Amino acid sequence: MSKPEGLPPMEYRFLGRSGLQVSAISLGGWLTYGGHVDREGTFACMKAAYDCGVNFFDCAEGYASGESEKVMGEAIKKYGWKRNDLVISTKLYWGGGFGEIKVNNTGLSRKHIIEGMNMSLERLQLDYVDLIYAHRPDRRTPMEETVRAFNHLISTGKALYWGTSEWNADEIAQAWRYADKLGLIGPLMEQPQYNMLERTKVEHEYAHLYRETGLGLTIFSPLKQGILSGKYKDGIPDDSRFAQTQVEFVAGYWKRTGKEQFQAIVDQVNSLQPIAEKLGVKLSVLALAWVLANPNVSSAITGASSPAQVYENIEAIAVYKKLTPEILKEIDQKLNNKPPAITARF
Amino acid sequence: MSKPEGLPPMEYRFLGRSGLQVSAISLGGWLTYGGHVDREGTFACMKAAYDCGVNFFDCAEGYASGESEKVMGEAIKKYGWKRNDLVISTKLYWGGGFGEIKVNNTGLSRKHIIEGMNMSLERLQLDYVDLIYAHRPDRRTPMEETVRAFNHLISTGKALYWGTSEWNADEIAQAWRYADKLGLIGPLMEQPQYNMLERTKVEHEYAHLYRETGLGLTIFSPLKQGILSGKYKDGIPDDSRFAQTQVEFVAGYWKRTGKEQFQAIVDQVNSLQPIAEKLGVKLSVLALAWVLANPNVSSAITGASSPAQVYENIEAIAVYKKLTPEILKEIDQKLNNKPPAITARF
Amino acid sequence: MSKPEGLPPMEYRFLGRSGLQVSAISLGGWLTYGGHVDREGTFACMKAAYDCGVNFFDCAEGYASGESEKVMGEAIKKYGWKRNDLVISTKLYWGGGFGEIKVNNTGLSRKHIIEGMNMSLERLQLDYVDLIYAHRPDRRTPMEETVRAFNHLISTGKALYWGTSEWNADEIAQAWRYADKLGLIGPLMEQPQYNMLERTKVEHEYAHLYRETGLGLTIFSPLKQGILSGKYKDGIPDDSRFAQTQVEFVAGYWKRTGKEQFQAIVDQVNSLQPIAEKLGVKLSVLALAWVLANPNVSSAITGASSPAQVYENIEAIAVYKKLTPEILKEIDQKLNNKPPAITARF
Amino acid sequence: MSKPEGLPPMEYRFLGRSGLQVSAISLGGWLTYGGHVDREGTFACMKAAYDCGVNFFDCAEGYASGESEKVMGEAIKKYGWKRNDLVISTKLYWGGGFGEIKVNNTGLSRKHIIEGMNMSLERLQLDYVDLIYAHRPDRRTPMEETVRAFNHLISTGKALYWGTSEWNADEIAQAWRYADKLGLIGPLMEQPQYNMLERTKVEHEYAHLYRETGLGLTIFSPLKQGILSGKYKDGIPDDSRFAQTQVEFVAGYWKRTGKEQFQAIVDQVNSLQPIAEKLGVKLSVLALAWVLANPNVSSAITGASSPAQVYENIEAIAVYKKLTPEILKEIDQKLNNKPPAITARF
Repeated sequence: MSKPEGLPPMEYRFLGRSGLQVSAISLGGWLTYGGHVDREGTFACMKAAYDCGVNFFDCAEGYASGESEKVMGEAIKKYGWKRNDLVISTKLYWGGGFGEIKVNNTGLSRKHIIEGMNMSLERLQLDYVDLIYAHRPDRRTPMEETVRAFNHLISTGKALYWGTSEWNADEIAQAWRYADKLGLIGPLMEQPQYNMLERTKVEHEYAHLYRETGLGLTIFSPLKQGILSGKYKDGIPDDSRFAQTQVEFVAGYWKRTGKEQFQAIVDQVNSLQPIAEKLGVKLSVLALAWVLANPNVSSAITGASSPAQVYENIEAIAVYKKLTPEILKEIDQKLNNKPPAITARF
Repeated sequence: MSKPEGLPPMEYRFLGRSGLQVSAISLGGWLTYGGHVDREGTFACMKAAYDCGVNFFDCAEGYASGESEKVMGEAIKKYGWKRNDLVISTKLYWGGGFGEIKVNNTGLSRKHIIEGMNMSLERLQLDYVDLIYAHRPDRRTPMEETVRAFNHLISTGKALYWGTSEWNADEIAQAWRYADKLGLIGPLMEQPQYNMLERTKVEHEYAHLYRETGLGLTIFSPLKQGILSGKYKDGIPDDSRFAQTQVEFVAGYWKRTGKEQFQAIVDQVNSLQPIAEKLGVKLSVLALAWVLANPNVSSAITGASSPAQVYENIEAIAVYKKLTPEILKEIDQKLNNKPPAITARF
Repeated sequence: MSKPEGLPPMEYRFLGRSGLQVSAISLGGWLTYGGHVDREGTFACMKAAYDCGVNFFDCAEGYASGESEKVMGEAIKKYGWKRNDLVISTKLYWGGGFGEIKVNNTGLSRKHIIEGMNMSLERLQLDYVDLIYAHRPDRRTPMEETVRAFNHLISTGKALYWGTSEWNADEIAQAWRYADKLGLIGPLMEQPQYNMLERTKVEHEYAHLYRETGLGLTIFSPLKQGILSGKYKDGIPDDSRFAQTQVEFVAGYWKRTGKEQFQAIVDQVNSLQPIAEKLGVKLSVLALAWVLANPNVSSAITGASSPAQVYENIEAIAVYKKLTPEILKEIDQKLNNKPPAITARF
Repeated sequence: MSKPEGLPPMEYRFLGRSGLQVSAISLGGWLTYGGHVDREGTFACMKAAYDCGVNFFDCAEGYASGESEKVMGEAIKKYGWKRNDLVISTKLYWGGGFGEIKVNNTGLSRKHIIEGMNMSLERLQLDYVDLIYAHRPDRRTPMEETVRAFNHLISTGKALYWGTSEWNADEIAQAWRYADKLGLIGPLMEQPQYNMLERTKVEHEYAHLYRETGLGLTIFSPLKQGILSGKYKDGIPDDSRFAQTQVEFVAGYWKRTGKEQFQAIVDQVNSLQPIAEKLGVKLSVLALAWVLANPNVSSAITGASSPAQVYENIEAIAVYKKLTPEILKEIDQKLNNKPPAITARF
């Protein structure tokens, strides 16, 4: 499938309080690349995204035990893209694969950050990444050691900026405390889950950090693993992620809530359908546009298993501009999960 | 009423990572002193507490619009207690009275911190307080200004240590960030609400801060405004706080939950009665002892409107040592509100 | 000899206040590898240790004049072990061989630290070591120069962490003083002698450092050069270390005490035999387990001249967990050398 | 008794690496002033000392529960000495009296350091002291709090320099670590016991600190509570300190050793008699001179209960210059307690 006519031009946003610009929509390889999408499929998706102006491609050492990095690295090589046109990220924490704990090959010790980075770069066939993330907080390694080690990656030219993923707000503040004390570089960006069903971290917990540290967000799961695409409204299809290998880990959500409560969520999601129709877009596009309407979001990382999905996602760039305060308020009322405001002065 | 026989000796605890020792049970004047308890009643309570070894007396500029500080100051003078045997605190934020907002007489600007401190010391008839708290976060004043202003109080000898009350974990971490960057003193202690019904901040949100900043806690409302004393089990009596002037502000809880849900809480509280009976103590003593069993609590601030209440509270010093892991587990099961553990390494 | 059945699984401990994990039992090459144990013997010991989960292998530029590093490097290559599964250390001080003083090839000048490191890495055939130690204090080189030079090794990626060996407590504190002043990394670990007969440094002198600097210990001579294995109870055998080349340096102990006093020590050691028997283990295993029972010990570096010795040492992992407070007290009484406690508040 | 003819002129020494000069012999009030020497006796001793050029008078809040400070303060007033001609010290730790522990009135918390200083100055009737000491280490108060609090005294003009008494070497180094990190003033001087029988701290443990921190020493007990004056050679006389009230605390030495071992010490002390005779001085003068021969000693604090003792002590100023290397070596041989040298380079 070739790029359809009428797609909006890509929008680039500064990543938090930095001079780096990332495409508002980006492509990530959590479950797909190196995993259930094959090499050729990955290449096709990345090519489609690149042609739409996507410049930011997101990876992690733990995704598909390193295969995700390998296939992304091959795509970059295959298409001969210029390095300076790309923003490439990876994440360190699970050197042995997503969720697996191995002595000194897991976590945020100086040893693993340095060794993990070297191994990631080798798999990516790159000299450096633009963004390096701490994939989770490591509460057994002193914060100072972690802050110093990520700065070591920057000093040695192996990464340009560093950030975090799914850290608590006070942990990000502590990282800045050590960075400031030592004259080092603090974490620039966070990669939290953010979507219509998961709002607390981004809209409430991190509220002070945008101002205090200039935090930028590259959010993942804007469609909540497909729930917000409406694809579960008639039950779980066999070809969904829930039916794949990673289902156990991914679908923590599924198990936590139980089928009944899950149905309630699906009902709630369905109640947004009329709004999507009024805007003349699919529910999934509305959900993605809604994420982009939050000015603290620098980029929404999407997963796509076909160029068609890539193109569909791009539509959200135009749609989010149509989300007036009235529409956003209507969505808030349907969702009924807007986190409490942080009182400025009592 | 004179001091009963058989009361346990007072226990002193270090206030967080400092060299200051506070009595594990302390006396505070939120609603009582300067408010619905008269001068003579306040004097009697303070005398009873002092005679039981209480060395820490807690106040705030906003309590009873400053009357609380005045009457506490008078008591200290009246009894001729030695200054170095006392730990006196007050809090700055609402110069115009608890919850009232006035331009430049509210919040944590350098102007109000310095002016408020001077006025508090005048009311207390003291040269300095031991502890000065920011009564709430002020999100419109830059953190650096607030951190500098509290350090100014310490530099000029008007306070010995500073802390916060009801701040978010990341705000405390930010305060330390500025303190460290500037070589200044960070906030030593927090004064959160903590009791069997309100556990999240102390047991979950602040979890990293104990280690990272040496945070100490002087908690308030160990009995949740009387709910944990069991006094509401048969309905709300006319002479309870709920029937007093401050009811609107205090009983936010009451309004938030609605009568039905409030009854459910009362039922839950009542289910702890058998445990109290097994230990041979009143439910209120068990509730206070439960707070003291948390090693991160340096002092539990109690409010008492009579010496009898003071003496009853002191019993908790002996009772908390009887709370074995088994009993604490049983309590957790009845309460069913234990916050999730913070995963150390994923 | 192949690995026996029933050996306990390896335990990994964080190295002081860091995110690095080392096996509680490790293998060192002080007198053996490159020395009186031949290449094939060294390979066999290292293989046996690795198969038991040992991840930490300790060396020094001065051991066997560099031969120890060479043979360790060969073993790593020979077995194709993954670099990130290993924690490799070496030590700088005696570039000309253990105990020999040569101008600019001895000590802790910037010149020798940088040059010595390069030569060690060449002998080890590695790009970096995990741990680099100052093998002794050098009181003629300014502390600042030494602290800066070890940080240079870390900055240039040649070492991940640095530490000291047999420094005085105040020298370690001085190193941290310069590190803090300059925003550099302080020494993480110490390598002292520690065993039942030599307790003062670890149990008394360093007492404050564990808390103040997060010091970790990788101790050597847990068996006091074999004295604690009971092998000298009937006199000194011809094949003992005392009869080898290094005897002059090693047996400082021997000479200091005189034969009579040495016999008294041997008697004292023998008095522990009943405790070992009660636990059903050899005296040497008890002695090693006793070292592991000290929570400040991150790893006990053992020397082994055969796989059989390696396997025997591993038993201590299970045995130390059986050392109850009562047994430890009994051992203290027999040894009668427990250092005085450090009074906390007078 | 008036000042005898022929006394040597006072010698002034810089206090460590500072610009302050103290008399090599000074006067202290540990057991005497405010204690078993009466007011008039104290006045006479201080006058005698002052007339001999003694400018440094040493005190502590804990000596005689504050009486020592009071009587010293009265003497200064009585004689109308100019403030700038005097170096006055006191020490903080035991606000309730030497060796007594009281909550917040003992130790090195910010609270006690500030409150204790104020109370000391009131007793001394002074606006400031020249030297303020931490009378012991307080291992339960964070070092940073203590370092900051002593600097607060200096900032507010209540003390000019601060130091320690009987701290371990690594604790002094840690204090400097925090001082340097925060741009504050580190401890200038230590007040250890030092005499012919107690040499380890001064000659061995502190060896690096003279160079590393510029540490100065104002030593106490140069005559080891009279043992080195030879006055116990024929048993303990009734008018000795051992027969006074404080004997229990002071004579820890006595009890620790047992009478037999004490006799051995007395014998050893007696063996120095021929050397004293050769120099034509009393043994006590030789012992004091020996202390002054150590260039790291800035001042030897003597206790005197009569002007005669003061004058006798002054003689040591002349005698120490006669202690040739040969004589010092002979003394070392008799004492047989010279601490091992600290090897500079191995």
